[in-house]
Amino acid sequence: MRVVITGGAGFVGRKLVDRLLRDGEAAGPDGAMREISEIVVFDQTDPVPPLPDDRRVRAVAGDISDRATVEGVIAEGTGSVFHLAAVVSAAAEADLDLGLRVNLDGTRAVIDACRKLSAPPRLVFASSCAVYGGEPPVLVDDLTPPDPRTSYGAQKACGELLVNDYSRRGIVDGRAVRLPTIVVRPGKPNKAASTFASSILREPLSGVETICPVEPRSRMAILSPRRLIDCLMTLHNMNSARLGAERRILLPSISVTIGEMVEGLERAGGREAVDRIKWQRDDHIQSIVDHWPARMEASRAAKLGLVGDRSIDEMIAAFVEDDLPAQKALAQG
Amino acid sequence: MRVVITGGAGFVGRKLVDRLLRDGEAAGPDGAMREISEIVVFDQTDPVPPLPDDRRVRAVAGDISDRATVEGVIAEGTGSVFHLAAVVSAAAEADLDLGLRVNLDGTRAVIDACRKLSAPPRLVFASSCAVYGGEPPVLVDDLTPPDPRTSYGAQKACGELLVNDYSRRGIVDGRAVRLPTIVVRPGKPNKAASTFASSILREPLSGVETICPVEPRSRMAILSPRRLIDCLMTLHNMNSARLGAERRILLPSISVTIGEMVEGLERAGGREAVDRIKWQRDDHIQSIVDHWPARMEASRAAKLGLVGDRSIDEMIAAFVEDDLPAQKALAQG
Repeated sequence: MRVVITGGAGFVGRKLVDRLLRDGEAAGPDGAMREISEIVVFDQTDPVPPLPDDRRVRAVAGDISDRATVEGVIAEGTGSVFHLAAVVSAAAEADLDLGLRVNLDGTRAVIDACRKLSAPPRLVFASSCAVYGGEPPVLVDDLTPPDPRTSYGAQKACGELLVNDYSRRGIVDGRAVRLPTIVVRPGKPNKAASTFASSILREPLSGVETICPVEPRSRMAILSPRRLIDCLMTLHNMNSARLGAERRILLPSISVTIGEMVEGLERAGGREAVDRIKWQRDDHIQSIVDHWPARMEASRAAKLGLVGDRSIDEMIAAFVEDDLPAQKALAQG
Repeated sequence: MRVVITGGAGFVGRKLVDRLLRDGEAAGPDGAMREISEIVVFDQTDPVPPLPDDRRVRAVAGDISDRATVEGVIAEGTGSVFHLAAVVSAAAEADLDLGLRVNLDGTRAVIDACRKLSAPPRLVFASSCAVYGGEPPVLVDDLTPPDPRTSYGAQKACGELLVNDYSRRGIVDGRAVRLPTIVVRPGKPNKAASTFASSILREPLSGVETICPVEPRSRMAILSPRRLIDCLMTLHNMNSARLGAERRILLPSISVTIGEMVEGLERAGGREAVDRIKWQRDDHIQSIVDHWPARMEASRAAKLGLVGDRSIDEMIAAFVEDDLPAQKALAQG
């Protein structure tokens, strides 16, 4: 069985490749576990650094909104698609057309390509808690209606609706997964407004200075990459009868303040790590963060057996174990 | 000021043309009332019967998903757009591509055309209570999250999200209006699953036999065309500061059973009218209707001054007054 990962060159995609190679199998269209014969990592450019040297892994570069390209990738034999390709929040806000093209048209290209397959593939669509909005304090649970206040959130909310509808029609067997802010992201800062939440832990632990643009009181709902990958695979392999018609799923998270994150940093890296944070409030980012869900009750996820992190310390420890060596190498150029 | 009505050849569009001609003015982009110099009725074919003979009215035939065509219609000078063009529920369910092209791409073509205007026009987007779904009995209020169970509902819910986002960005000054089932629709039955709700009143009053495919106990939330037009114009002319960031608005309705509708028919048209209904249950339509909201509490609409009907008798009387003469002429071919 072929597994396709769109946006697969990003950090979630890379961790997913490692996991799929390790598992060696995943649930196929009929629910039975199938051997993974090929993992296609589709992204706009070839992955840097290169993908694992494994005969099962193949990189394809192309435009997610180009239907012919996407159809070529999601070809017969594809039993599973992880659709991670996206333009992140700040970039989608800065360029409406780009966001619509990648986040909305790209998602349509992916699910429409699935229409040509002889069996509806499992589809895990990375949505986002940016679908929530409204006035702070924003408390979110499984019944909270999407009310996006960014173009990114609106585009993701549209994608979710289409994944639900295509699942109902039997074109895909979808799971539209609402990701909390992922902390600690490895790699470099990106254009997401939330990027600082990882930077303030990752950079000091790697010996690099960083800026925190929000106040210590600011509260966020976060999930580690390690737990995220577990959640994605659990959902992917789950019998869809457990999901029913509603395929939009809020992932687990813990609610911590920036101050609590920095306390965890001190426990892991000492005072010298904390001193690498420069506090420079950015009113724009502060306002964005103040409108994000501070606390999210993911009861349905818990019932489905999805497990979040227990503490900020556990999240930092996972980063140190999984990613810090590569991160230090990156920092040293 | 030019007013554009997409899907303007339908019954709502025609009633809107009459109303706009009578009003002679409507709120412009800056909120001040402006004289209406032109009403463009855009639809896929030329209107039959012809539009009112008024120098201000112009019919344009074209495809709503053709961006160049739509840009030509929503040209500089357009202060107001009523976007009514849609593929209705059963048709969008039967043909996924057609529904996506008209209901989603068409809406995007309309709001993107507005990006080229020097001032953001008012945009009234006809959405639908088909955005609601889930298990019956479905009770809906302003906080009920969209959970569509049809492709039509999913496409409308996406359109609403985009109208909200484009309003937030200042591209349009939008109102995404959730229409209940409109009763009594004049004209002929269409491909909407709800079409019988009008047919069982309209046809008997016009001396024509009709079939009722659902049981008398079936309950629906309905609004008359007359009140609908009032609601659309009130929302159009309203200062958008009253709406805030949330531009999705549930319209008022009354909750009646099919049995109560038929009792109203008997009061208006006598026993002979009721006898023109043949009761032939259709399990498919019964199931669809059972999943529609039976009762909707539109508190926000009431606060905004939107007024629904008081009774089924009032709704039937409005049809008799506004539409029955033309309906009888239609019935006699």
